[in-house]
Amino acid sequence: MTRGLTIALDGMGGDHGPETVIGGVEVASVRHPDVRFLIYGDETKIRPLLEKHPRVLSVSEIVHTDVAVSMEDKPSQALRRGRKTSSMWLAIDAVKEGRAQAAVSAGNTGALMAMAKVILKTMPNVERPALAALWPTARGESVALDLGATVGADGYQLVQFAVMGEAFARVIFNLERPTVGLLNIGEEEVKGTEGVKLAAQMLREADLPMHFHGFVEGDDIAKGTVDVIVTDGYTGNIALKTAEGMVRLVVDYLRAAMRSSLLSRLGYLLAYGAFRALAKKLDPRASNGAVFLGLNGLVVKSHGGTDAIGFAAAIDVAVDVASADLLSKIVADLDRLSGFATAVANRKENADIVESEAVLS
Amino acid sequence: MTRGLTIALDGMGGDHGPETVIGGVEVASVRHPDVRFLIYGDETKIRPLLEKHPRVLSVSEIVHTDVAVSMEDKPSQALRRGRKTSSMWLAIDAVKEGRAQAAVSAGNTGALMAMAKVILKTMPNVERPALAALWPTARGESVALDLGATVGADGYQLVQFAVMGEAFARVIFNLERPTVGLLNIGEEEVKGTEGVKLAAQMLREADLPMHFHGFVEGDDIAKGTVDVIVTDGYTGNIALKTAEGMVRLVVDYLRAAMRSSLLSRLGYLLAYGAFRALAKKLDPRASNGAVFLGLNGLVVKSHGGTDAIGFAAAIDVAVDVASADLLSKIVADLDRLSGFATAVANRKENADIVESEAVLS
Repeated sequence: MTRGLTIALDGMGGDHGPETVIGGVEVASVRHPDVRFLIYGDETKIRPLLEKHPRVLSVSEIVHTDVAVSMEDKPSQALRRGRKTSSMWLAIDAVKEGRAQAAVSAGNTGALMAMAKVILKTMPNVERPALAALWPTARGESVALDLGATVGADGYQLVQFAVMGEAFARVIFNLERPTVGLLNIGEEEVKGTEGVKLAAQMLREADLPMHFHGFVEGDDIAKGTVDVIVTDGYTGNIALKTAEGMVRLVVDYLRAAMRSSLLSRLGYLLAYGAFRALAKKLDPRASNGAVFLGLNGLVVKSHGGTDAIGFAAAIDVAVDVASADLLSKIVADLDRLSGFATAVANRKENADIVESEAVLS
Repeated sequence: MTRGLTIALDGMGGDHGPETVIGGVEVASVRHPDVRFLIYGDETKIRPLLEKHPRVLSVSEIVHTDVAVSMEDKPSQALRRGRKTSSMWLAIDAVKEGRAQAAVSAGNTGALMAMAKVILKTMPNVERPALAALWPTARGESVALDLGATVGADGYQLVQFAVMGEAFARVIFNLERPTVGLLNIGEEEVKGTEGVKLAAQMLREADLPMHFHGFVEGDDIAKGTVDVIVTDGYTGNIALKTAEGMVRLVVDYLRAAMRSSLLSRLGYLLAYGAFRALAKKLDPRASNGAVFLGLNGLVVKSHGGTDAIGFAAAIDVAVDVASADLLSKIVADLDRLSGFATAVANRKENADIVESEAVLS
């Protein structure tokens, strides 16, 4: 159901600003003709672009503001300078105020996260939000989280990530029971950090309607062993960037190899169609659009350096999660955890008591 | 200086056992004609292979044992069943007893690590050993550690990893001052876990003859931004396996693309030389051979599934580190840390006191 849906856009975010945003709406609005857009930003820059894109003009409203968060601003600076006035703030605020069902920004991640937390606050039963995104695999795509919303996560926070990620996968892949795996350094129960071991135990014990697969290893991500990969933000961010770097390296190697001789150039020309298909499969724009989960509102982060095609993919994600009412699904699922949470909290308290007794003795 | 060097080999380790090991020696002994090999394992299986490889026969000695650690044994099982009798134990013991300057095994990692620790013990000033290996990058190769010897590491342990990894890079790349980076989720000083922040502070404060670059991110690994990437074993293992999985995925995509049409097949044939060169660059066998650093003896782990070419690469690593006397270099470098270590230990103790006071109050 996309009828009646409004998406708020930070018109000034990203390396290329309004041009990418308007270009993205142009592409996305073909796929989602019923969706309306609220575009926050400098009207003197946005209006002329809209004149060139009549389709965008017909489904959008510009809300003018002079203030924009820069890509270099630290979260604290952005909050100080952009509070209540910046295009990023206003787009998120539109979600809070119910004028839009999701916000999309290609602006800087730290600032977006900080503003989203301040404006939307975390959901009940959520201690930390998580950044979830689609990861290309041999079986198609998987959801991975946390990709760097916060640093580290304890066992119970990983359980919350698992619940949120599972709901996201149900919505975005249209799956009834996606499989969920905890990222670890071995499949045996004895391996791993205290956090992942505790999370695995909880996910097994908790009576959740979730298909918990157990531990998965790094190479299971690309294999597509599970639909949802759960990890802490430190590990997830490093794994993601390491993977992106290696893919770029292989592509660079391939490009150099194809240019290395006259025969290889000719071969490249003959196999051009196949290379095009390969490039499409590896196109990072296709999986653009990471969602901050665990807040009282939907915020989608687009890559800062993307173009109109990539920004449109981020809009797609926003439309998908907003039209499926992901938020209510997550709230309901987390609610099932809350009885369990009390038990965990008690157990934790007991552990703390035991620990402080150990220190005292 | 490879004259007088002896390498001890676990003749039974790996998915393919003696065949890979003997094949590896055949390849490696062409490059290192002066090196001698002590091969531990089942003589009834090894002897017939040696008869087929006269070169190997002329530089090797078989030491018979019936017992072999299996790829499925847990470390505790391996220690129980293979103590003092298995080919893996005996190869490591040869290093301890000075009969060999390094040991190589393609056997199971957990068992090898456990046995190496029991037999060789950790060096002075080292709290935990680390697994270090070569990582292919746009600039050639970098050293990365810890790739999974232990789970997690605190700030001071990361500093020890940095010192050991730097010495390894000096030897293996023949560099005077390799650059060292700490893997993190951002380059700013305020980001990251307490461990990496503390490690960065210590590496800046400590008066080490080390070129400390600061923090690096996941995509800096493939870029080759630094010669040595330092991280904890949990993150390192996940990053490595995630990267391996993604490279395999891209290669599979490429293979499928090249088979997708008659034209692409023809293109593949024309560019065959270029594809061969690419395959060579991506060949995981070339960077086979991870070293356990921080023990009183050199132990090299080969991939279990590798072939003779890969096993020979692991032997190359063993010869390189043994002939350059990596151990003495690490001991000397760590010694520089020891005054610093006392200061850190005091600081830690103070912190512990403050913490227990906090609990008491």
